[in-house]
Amino acid sequence: MSARPSMAPLQALVGDDLGRVNEVILRRMDSRVALIPQLAGHIIAAGGKRLRPMLTLAAARLCDYDGVRHIPLAASVEFIHTATLLHDDVVDESDLRRGNATANVLWGNQASVLVGDFLFSRAFQVMVEAGDMEVLRILSDASAVIAEGEVLQLETANNTATTEDAYLEVISAKTAALFAAACRIGAVVAERPVAEETALESFGKNLGIAFQLVDDALDYAAREAELGKTIGDDFREGKVTLPVVLAFRRGSEDERTFWRRCIEAGEQEDGDLDRAVDLIRLHGALDDTVERARHYGAMARDALGLFPDGAVKRALDEVIDFCIERAH
Amino acid sequence: MSARPSMAPLQALVGDDLGRVNEVILRRMDSRVALIPQLAGHIIAAGGKRLRPMLTLAAARLCDYDGVRHIPLAASVEFIHTATLLHDDVVDESDLRRGNATANVLWGNQASVLVGDFLFSRAFQVMVEAGDMEVLRILSDASAVIAEGEVLQLETANNTATTEDAYLEVISAKTAALFAAACRIGAVVAERPVAEETALESFGKNLGIAFQLVDDALDYAAREAELGKTIGDDFREGKVTLPVVLAFRRGSEDERTFWRRCIEAGEQEDGDLDRAVDLIRLHGALDDTVERARHYGAMARDALGLFPDGAVKRALDEVIDFCIERAH
Repeated sequence: MSARPSMAPLQALVGDDLGRVNEVILRRMDSRVALIPQLAGHIIAAGGKRLRPMLTLAAARLCDYDGVRHIPLAASVEFIHTATLLHDDVVDESDLRRGNATANVLWGNQASVLVGDFLFSRAFQVMVEAGDMEVLRILSDASAVIAEGEVLQLETANNTATTEDAYLEVISAKTAALFAAACRIGAVVAERPVAEETALESFGKNLGIAFQLVDDALDYAAREAELGKTIGDDFREGKVTLPVVLAFRRGSEDERTFWRRCIEAGEQEDGDLDRAVDLIRLHGALDDTVERARHYGAMARDALGLFPDGAVKRALDEVIDFCIERAH
Repeated sequence: MSARPSMAPLQALVGDDLGRVNEVILRRMDSRVALIPQLAGHIIAAGGKRLRPMLTLAAARLCDYDGVRHIPLAASVEFIHTATLLHDDVVDESDLRRGNATANVLWGNQASVLVGDFLFSRAFQVMVEAGDMEVLRILSDASAVIAEGEVLQLETANNTATTEDAYLEVISAKTAALFAAACRIGAVVAERPVAEETALESFGKNLGIAFQLVDDALDYAAREAELGKTIGDDFREGKVTLPVVLAFRRGSEDERTFWRRCIEAGEQEDGDLDRAVDLIRLHGALDDTVERARHYGAMARDALGLFPDGAVKRALDEVIDFCIERAH
């Protein structure tokens, strides 16, 4: 592919459906309690790529589904995602998301926790209305795994002994589980054979891992204006992501002392982030993090092998490339 | 009734079932992520009255249900309750619950938010396994209403203009909705007519309102050792509960200036809590809060009128009395 990979082909294919999903989201995030749509609207309506609900829509399309039940379910997926974002920002004490002040900064941690709970409940209400028990099973399982992953991330934070395997376990749970569920339910509503359900689940899971790997690389690479997030958040929070795992393992004893001070003791001074970025680049840890992402991207691509070639499959292939190549 | 009303008759009637519920709770709060059972065990296993799951068990018994599906559902109710407690303690910045240090003090706000999310997800997983879509509807609706009530409580906090109606709206949502749902699902599993479902829902709702009214009175009345919670929490947090609503409305302009300083401006000095307690007693606001609770207790009692007399109904009647008379 010569042009820069983008989400545009997928957006073109599922754009009409996504418009309907956005209508459901706007209608169902409403509440007689005014603070709820205000705060939820800030994080939901402000945008984001809507990648996860688009995956549900695309998966249903790939399975030749021609009904409408995927619409509310895609909205549920976005509600679950938004609830976790609100809680993440509280847990991480973040100030910025997509270049905007986070809800916890504008309305406080209390409101962010409670509106997250509301959106999470609302996700299940919408699923119940859709009336598919198998979808409820998949998304309640995913929600529990996501929460486990977030707790596991707390346990690995500030611990430079974290292995690449432990890191993979965290991102498989906190990120890839929802990607996997979002894709799988597209096959469930289309009532396709289990082999197609699991193929789409595998696609989503590996795409999610690749996506998070690149996200974690970008936290040491992105220019703020471009990414709409502050560079160095993970470093300041003492998160042990793959760039750090690799740089720590490949570094000298002197460098490891640096990482331990910054990440474990949490003692950070001016210039430490610059040194961290330099060390990560010196050891090729960013390039190799993206290289690892390519591996999972390749698995995601092969997972779609069961499905016939066509516009949807090509668009999903390009989403894999987009998730990885946005690193450059 | 001459003896002090207690939960003992209800505990005797549903004790075996409650033992099974506790087994489900202990088994399903487990996770490969060790911090989850540690933190969840602290708040769940430490006890509490298990009032809400006991209501599910009693409602099923009142409906002559002789199956086992009420057991996991009662566990789900307790998981939802526990998730809201964990989040409440973060939102309220509480230090003590039932006389023990709160989870947020022991493990931090981050873990409390995330383990709350896990328990909430687990509640839905257990409901999905039970496979009853109507129960899922009732409990997902209740969960959304609870979150709305908690946000509404944030909005009324620090506002001495809060009316008794606005206060009732808060406690109906944040507390009574789960009591109502816990009772209703007892009739649903027993496949009883809708009239019995709604009768039990009405019983639970009014019992829940009475329960919270008394809880809010106790926050200005209880001796710490007896209640296992610190007196004056609501005052310090600037919550506008009914004792404050009544004392504020019945007070002099000088007293209202006091309430505005303490509750709205949040400027509290030594001796302010004592003065607040004195003013609340002076205006009969504690007795009248409990009197209001008796009104809802009477409605709860009448809601059970459809059901034949017997041991279960008598035990539930005594629970109403217990919830109210624990104020003395």
